[in-house]
Amino acid sequence: MAGNTFGQLFKISTFGESHGKAIGVIIDGCPSQLPIDLDFIQSELDKRRPGQSKITTQRKESDTVEVLSGIFEGKSTGTPIALLIPNEDHRSKDYEHNKDVYRPSHADYTYDAKYGIRDHRGGGRSSARETAARVAAGAIAKLFLKHHGIEIFAHVSAVGTINAPHLEDLSIEELLHLREDNIVRCADPATAKQMVECIDAVRKDGDTIGGKISCKVQNCPVGLGEPVFDKLHADLGKAMLSINAVHGFEYGSGFSGTEMKGSEHNDIFLPASGNPKTLTNFSGGIQGGISNGMEINFTVGFKPVATIMHNQQTINAAGDAAEIKGKGRHDPCVVPRAVVIVEAMAALVLADHFLRNKVTKLD
Amino acid sequence: MAGNTFGQLFKISTFGESHGKAIGVIIDGCPSQLPIDLDFIQSELDKRRPGQSKITTQRKESDTVEVLSGIFEGKSTGTPIALLIPNEDHRSKDYEHNKDVYRPSHADYTYDAKYGIRDHRGGGRSSARETAARVAAGAIAKLFLKHHGIEIFAHVSAVGTINAPHLEDLSIEELLHLREDNIVRCADPATAKQMVECIDAVRKDGDTIGGKISCKVQNCPVGLGEPVFDKLHADLGKAMLSINAVHGFEYGSGFSGTEMKGSEHNDIFLPASGNPKTLTNFSGGIQGGISNGMEINFTVGFKPVATIMHNQQTINAAGDAAEIKGKGRHDPCVVPRAVVIVEAMAALVLADHFLRNKVTKLD
Amino acid sequence: MAGNTFGQLFKISTFGESHGKAIGVIIDGCPSQLPIDLDFIQSELDKRRPGQSKITTQRKESDTVEVLSGIFEGKSTGTPIALLIPNEDHRSKDYEHNKDVYRPSHADYTYDAKYGIRDHRGGGRSSARETAARVAAGAIAKLFLKHHGIEIFAHVSAVGTINAPHLEDLSIEELLHLREDNIVRCADPATAKQMVECIDAVRKDGDTIGGKISCKVQNCPVGLGEPVFDKLHADLGKAMLSINAVHGFEYGSGFSGTEMKGSEHNDIFLPASGNPKTLTNFSGGIQGGISNGMEINFTVGFKPVATIMHNQQTINAAGDAAEIKGKGRHDPCVVPRAVVIVEAMAALVLADHFLRNKVTKLD
Amino acid sequence: MAGNTFGQLFKISTFGESHGKAIGVIIDGCPSQLPIDLDFIQSELDKRRPGQSKITTQRKESDTVEVLSGIFEGKSTGTPIALLIPNEDHRSKDYEHNKDVYRPSHADYTYDAKYGIRDHRGGGRSSARETAARVAAGAIAKLFLKHHGIEIFAHVSAVGTINAPHLEDLSIEELLHLREDNIVRCADPATAKQMVECIDAVRKDGDTIGGKISCKVQNCPVGLGEPVFDKLHADLGKAMLSINAVHGFEYGSGFSGTEMKGSEHNDIFLPASGNPKTLTNFSGGIQGGISNGMEINFTVGFKPVATIMHNQQTINAAGDAAEIKGKGRHDPCVVPRAVVIVEAMAALVLADHFLRNKVTKLD
Repeated sequence: MAGNTFGQLFKISTFGESHGKAIGVIIDGCPSQLPIDLDFIQSELDKRRPGQSKITTQRKESDTVEVLSGIFEGKSTGTPIALLIPNEDHRSKDYEHNKDVYRPSHADYTYDAKYGIRDHRGGGRSSARETAARVAAGAIAKLFLKHHGIEIFAHVSAVGTINAPHLEDLSIEELLHLREDNIVRCADPATAKQMVECIDAVRKDGDTIGGKISCKVQNCPVGLGEPVFDKLHADLGKAMLSINAVHGFEYGSGFSGTEMKGSEHNDIFLPASGNPKTLTNFSGGIQGGISNGMEINFTVGFKPVATIMHNQQTINAAGDAAEIKGKGRHDPCVVPRAVVIVEAMAALVLADHFLRNKVTKLD
Repeated sequence: MAGNTFGQLFKISTFGESHGKAIGVIIDGCPSQLPIDLDFIQSELDKRRPGQSKITTQRKESDTVEVLSGIFEGKSTGTPIALLIPNEDHRSKDYEHNKDVYRPSHADYTYDAKYGIRDHRGGGRSSARETAARVAAGAIAKLFLKHHGIEIFAHVSAVGTINAPHLEDLSIEELLHLREDNIVRCADPATAKQMVECIDAVRKDGDTIGGKISCKVQNCPVGLGEPVFDKLHADLGKAMLSINAVHGFEYGSGFSGTEMKGSEHNDIFLPASGNPKTLTNFSGGIQGGISNGMEINFTVGFKPVATIMHNQQTINAAGDAAEIKGKGRHDPCVVPRAVVIVEAMAALVLADHFLRNKVTKLD
Repeated sequence: MAGNTFGQLFKISTFGESHGKAIGVIIDGCPSQLPIDLDFIQSELDKRRPGQSKITTQRKESDTVEVLSGIFEGKSTGTPIALLIPNEDHRSKDYEHNKDVYRPSHADYTYDAKYGIRDHRGGGRSSARETAARVAAGAIAKLFLKHHGIEIFAHVSAVGTINAPHLEDLSIEELLHLREDNIVRCADPATAKQMVECIDAVRKDGDTIGGKISCKVQNCPVGLGEPVFDKLHADLGKAMLSINAVHGFEYGSGFSGTEMKGSEHNDIFLPASGNPKTLTNFSGGIQGGISNGMEINFTVGFKPVATIMHNQQTINAAGDAAEIKGKGRHDPCVVPRAVVIVEAMAALVLADHFLRNKVTKLD
Repeated sequence: MAGNTFGQLFKISTFGESHGKAIGVIIDGCPSQLPIDLDFIQSELDKRRPGQSKITTQRKESDTVEVLSGIFEGKSTGTPIALLIPNEDHRSKDYEHNKDVYRPSHADYTYDAKYGIRDHRGGGRSSARETAARVAAGAIAKLFLKHHGIEIFAHVSAVGTINAPHLEDLSIEELLHLREDNIVRCADPATAKQMVECIDAVRKDGDTIGGKISCKVQNCPVGLGEPVFDKLHADLGKAMLSINAVHGFEYGSGFSGTEMKGSEHNDIFLPASGNPKTLTNFSGGIQGGISNGMEINFTVGFKPVATIMHNQQTINAAGDAAEIKGKGRHDPCVVPRAVVIVEAMAALVLADHFLRNKVTKLD
């Protein structure tokens, strides 16, 4: 109810502040007997970890995951899986200079107004550090999906005005290889180079820039998604919009579809013996809120990070004018580290709907 | 769990198929003692009703709302409010010709695959007729919000490639007047004229076209929205994406914000004695997922309606090629009737978060 | 959240007041393709219906169920099943004489204090009439359970100090026959006769009396029930305690088990090739909150009905002394009509846990 | 959904197995600004702790609580409060001898059947050790209730056939003093003495015995409890029945009320200027599922602990006959340590309903 829980059957609850002892997550509803590869969970966290390249924040956190419960002899037991990620680099003093002021376009003011408690230590619960817990939980969701043959791939499709071309029809394995070959996590090498240069220039200027992440899901079975309100794309949209800095979500034809005519946009079914395919896929793999077996695809838009290295005018808690200093360690562009967060949230939505779909029909 | 319920504290559950006896909604959690104006509920339904102008479907339904429970002597009692809207024009035979085929880009195939039941009568539960129930419930949410001074306004901001200009700073009362003065429900009269012409031409061609609806919320108190997952814009996004034909959602700076720099995008706080204002509002009235007291604004993208008056290639349930005839009565463009649905869903999200915010702080 | 919904996956929401237009229920989560026998639903309602014998209230209601949605060509479609039961005999004037006073041990005072709305028409939402909606929903849950071979049987095991003996090992079919052969619904004919005499004497005296209902479930598969909080018996207990007038619940050895020693109480497992049996069944078919395949059994205690035909001292809304007249039409003992309510609630709990158990293990 | 979460607005989720690294709890929904007294939380845990007297298990656990999140400068922040209790004495080898057999009247068999995973280390998730997490969370709920003037008191009212007399009208402070003055936690000193002797004799005999705990709530405001399904006593009942070894729950007149007549049982309202009182309190402080301002009272029945120091016949996982040895360290009677668990669960139910009641009426 207080918004710290996501999912219905494959359900996660995250906890922890950026400068407390630890952050963590409880995964409740993961079926028993799933082999849990802890190295895989850690490798996912490493993709989100700060300090991984010159275009990410230099804050140092190893983000080492610790299992407290729910796994026995390498398998899920069906009981809650509790994962803990201790906070190491909680230099609260980095935030002392901003103790009394509200940082522009951050959550300082709204949290203070809502809760009557000012935790000035770098965002507290509103910090994107919370997403590490989601990545850990998402890794388990990915293991569950992989067991059922479902695969997810996201990459950076835009930084500022630099857009990646439509990707050739490569396998997800190939795409992952291309993506992890550069620090911006764009699967198109030429575009990736431009993106890195752009972010580096923005960083040197003490500024930040927005971007987009595109994601696709392959081998999704037909039937996932619950009409009316829990349409698959509605739950994907909520999942993505709950990630820090996200301002937009579109799937299939998205906003460009608003300019099309029905006769262009309709996806014609092709004769087939098994699950039918469609000639085009403007539906983005989802019709009536339910997966139709085609590739699911969507795009997520991120605003530029609010913390910049410029001094800015703002106010303090009394409402008086104040200046905020541009200090600290922050990301010039959030998308390279957010790729794995987008994948994690997509995996959580799909795992949840996979389970929900199991009780749809009479045996 | 099966996706027919929306909201946590101000909660609605809809039921009913397009060609059954009735559709309806239960509103559970509306506080007691709220005066309920039934004429207002009906006037909201009239804005969604089919057959209201030449650019909407000619299907005839009076959509008359009937109260079954929860209202006593003109006020909510705190018990579930059940509203019923009988179906009148259920000409199932209009759909007989499509009984055995899957209509392209409709939910026929996915529902059949998911449930193993083919209700060929015009969409059944996947029909946009279900949204009438949402409009009725949304009208009660609007009454609740009005009691607290909160106002919502949506209008058609694009049809195909025709975009409305940014609206002048008019009051919501004035905007409503301008919007209801034309059949496309765009508050800019010149643009509205073009839009009507466009839709009419598309209609004559037996085709359909997409569009956008923009919505804003005024006088929203500071503090609505629950981090981490139930951010106000995440719940608004899910609400909008759950409306039939919606393919995209953006708030504040939206996708255009992905191209901006932090130094441009940050909303500077202005000194103030009460709630602070910001110089710009790229945050769309929401920071850290919580309303900051500024105007909330977002845009929703709708794909073109899938039912067109052209013959189309498709398949039947056996997977064999079939042709679908372009017959029946449908909307050439969904946005004029969807304006009130967008407002209804926004009202439901805000009413829910208004109540949720009441248990945040110790008394 | 407002307490009108029960269940997680097989979920019901009831609505309606005793003196409004109708009461009803939405069943959300019933799997598709279940054959729905409307005559069976009606026959269940007939067992709860007022006016069925000399020992029940003479209020007249046919309690005819009407299907609004969710059933197509005799089968559930997987969408919400809406059932409506119109109110016929809403003689509000029967209640006019009590308009200003709080009836002792009724919910008049607490509802007024909680909601600030006084619906004096015979209890409104707190009336046991609401349980008709549960019986209709429970009938569908029973059909679902029967499809899986699970059977439920309840009967009146005590009226006042008259207790039925432990029933011989008869089939549920035989027990049902014995139970429906008398108006008090006790499966032991000799005890039933005493009970009817007792209730009739109490009725003539204008008084009321309490009683107990015992229930058992046969052929329940092993594994239903979710630790830690949603233990099968905890959900059964809540279900029973939510029925009007219930003051106690016990399962297996119940309160008598508190006087036993572990060496007496432990149910010894017997060697077996399939599901093991136990020598005794003090566990009541549930161990660790999970069904173990043995017969599930529990007992529910009902207080005497609060409406009596005596004049009573009470207060009005101003807190002043008032006298309440003993008039109207009410049950001298609630248990004969409550047998089918107990069964309905048990069926709803079991159907819900049956579905929940389907997502426990990896496929 | 998997049953590890309790409550709606004041919500807890527990995790952890008896022989893993730690158990813990997330409290989500505790309002911000509540002063949190960690010493009080620890003192509550100390009352449940094993090894505290000669009549409890000699297993050694300090049960030291650690705060991971949600508390800043001594106050709740409104974000999830994560509490961890490391496991110290996880002598799994104590359970090696029972590795292959199902202990009678334990959850070994049902867990194995349900999850397909056998965690033989002393019960795993089904162990009563999980209740330590509830006690920690319940302590925070108690602090919340105390802030609002609400007080809870439970004590052992029966061990085997030894029943405590009805307690004189003492203050809760006095009762607590009397209760904590003896190791069985019965507030009547003479009865306590008999109970201790009884348990000690049972212990020496290698056996166990059942008992009862009675609980009352004072100064509960009028209006807590949500009809229809979430009646206050229904949620209390579920809470109590979810505690290990509980087989029965009754409130107010309870099962003895089933033998009464309405004319005896009705609680007559007395004229008053403020909240009315009733002459008797057979309603147990709850009418129509809603608190009426009178003292709330209920009784909980516990079966004898299943682990006894006798050898017992049982079966192994193959279904073959096996003998189980009477070894290990266990409680001869669970009620002395369960008093604080009953209070904790009652506090959680009341805190939850206190918050739920805040959104009932229009402001």
